[in-house]
Amino acid sequence: MTLRAREHFNRYLESTLLRADATAADVRGLCEEAALHRFVAVCVNPSRLLLAREVLRGTDVRLCTVIAFPLGAEPASLKVEQARWALQAGAQELDMVMNLGAFKDLDYRTVREEISQLSRLAHDQGALLKVIIETALLTPDEIKLATAQVAAGGADYVKTSTGFAASGAHARDVRLMRAVAPEWLKIKASGGIRSLAQALELIEVGADRIGTSVAGSLMHAYLQLEQESAPAPRPRPEER
Amino acid sequence: MTLRAREHFNRYLESTLLRADATAADVRGLCEEAALHRFVAVCVNPSRLLLAREVLRGTDVRLCTVIAFPLGAEPASLKVEQARWALQAGAQELDMVMNLGAFKDLDYRTVREEISQLSRLAHDQGALLKVIIETALLTPDEIKLATAQVAAGGADYVKTSTGFAASGAHARDVRLMRAVAPEWLKIKASGGIRSLAQALELIEVGADRIGTSVAGSLMHAYLQLEQESAPAPRPRPEER
Repeated sequence: MTLRAREHFNRYLESTLLRADATAADVRGLCEEAALHRFVAVCVNPSRLLLAREVLRGTDVRLCTVIAFPLGAEPASLKVEQARWALQAGAQELDMVMNLGAFKDLDYRTVREEISQLSRLAHDQGALLKVIIETALLTPDEIKLATAQVAAGGADYVKTSTGFAASGAHARDVRLMRAVAPEWLKIKASGGIRSLAQALELIEVGADRIGTSVAGSLMHAYLQLEQESAPAPRPRPEER
Repeated sequence: MTLRAREHFNRYLESTLLRADATAADVRGLCEEAALHRFVAVCVNPSRLLLAREVLRGTDVRLCTVIAFPLGAEPASLKVEQARWALQAGAQELDMVMNLGAFKDLDYRTVREEISQLSRLAHDQGALLKVIIETALLTPDEIKLATAQVAAGGADYVKTSTGFAASGAHARDVRLMRAVAPEWLKIKASGGIRSLAQALELIEVGADRIGTSVAGSLMHAYLQLEQESAPAPRPRPEER
């Protein structure tokens, strides 16, 4: 168990709900739980942004949504429109999907330029931009190259996965990303993170954020582990 | 094998390529194959629309793209922006995903109004609108109710699936849709259709279109079946 994580595990967790059929009640529940545990952020679909903002008002849980999710296969102009709308609706963090088709075509200019455009938009509003590179669809060399594009585009985070590909976050991929990312570029690990051991391992190898749809249960597991590993408390006087 | 399908099986097939990492060469190949077999349409991601239009120029293969795909969880205003862009880029058919969250909230007005908006937009440009209800996330009663909303919104097709949910097109779902759809509302079956038997069964129970990423191999299987079931041809004079 990593020391880095022990400090404030809750502030690593982005509680995520991107199911197409999530109800308003589901979103409300997610936000209330996030406020209770002081998770760093919640990530919801654009259509749920206004509701989440309302529930989170007055908390220090940040509001995140997704852009061109999960395929990333929209022209830059539409990604910009979506980002504009989301920022206006109160999003403080945008998770956009890289144009993977352009990347595979070796058209790095297209990839980078749209990241730059969204970075500027987000930063003008004091928001953060994360770029999902979908590691499951990339070779190790491509993971490094994609991370470099995200850095060149001036995003705040490079993010592993959408959760809609064949696999999600792996420690080996986060290590690759960390190896090439400049120090200021943070890493969000996401996709299939369902156990505390997984989350702690990802933090250990360099993840600054953990995106997960089971943030509540990870938090409970963490608190239990912390309790078990703490030295046995001395009985208080009144309990003697 | 259904008679309805025998006439022109190729004109049931929408050859679909919505992988995030599809390359320009993949898209080009898809379009060339579609032109060769005269498939009724190809369906590509928005970022590949201009390329597909260029390759399909002069053919009678229709150009289709997706809106708010595959989650449908964007506000109506963003779906409208995407539709406008796609129509301008040459799309003749739009496959939009219903707002499933609003549907589950029983907020049918939101569901219907955005379908109406996109129907009007599409029809003004002589294009078609299909609405994906994602049957895998719906009960049988919800499938009927969703089909009724799509009809009320004035779309041209109700479509079963995105291919990104746990399951895709099933004959039992198409039967339910057909039972409640007005006669003018067509049905597109899609998602996981990988065998000729499946495709023919879906047509048999009421599908007017088959969306599939293996259109070429279905077509080959169909031609082979046709050849095998045809009466043995008499040898031509020069072959005697």
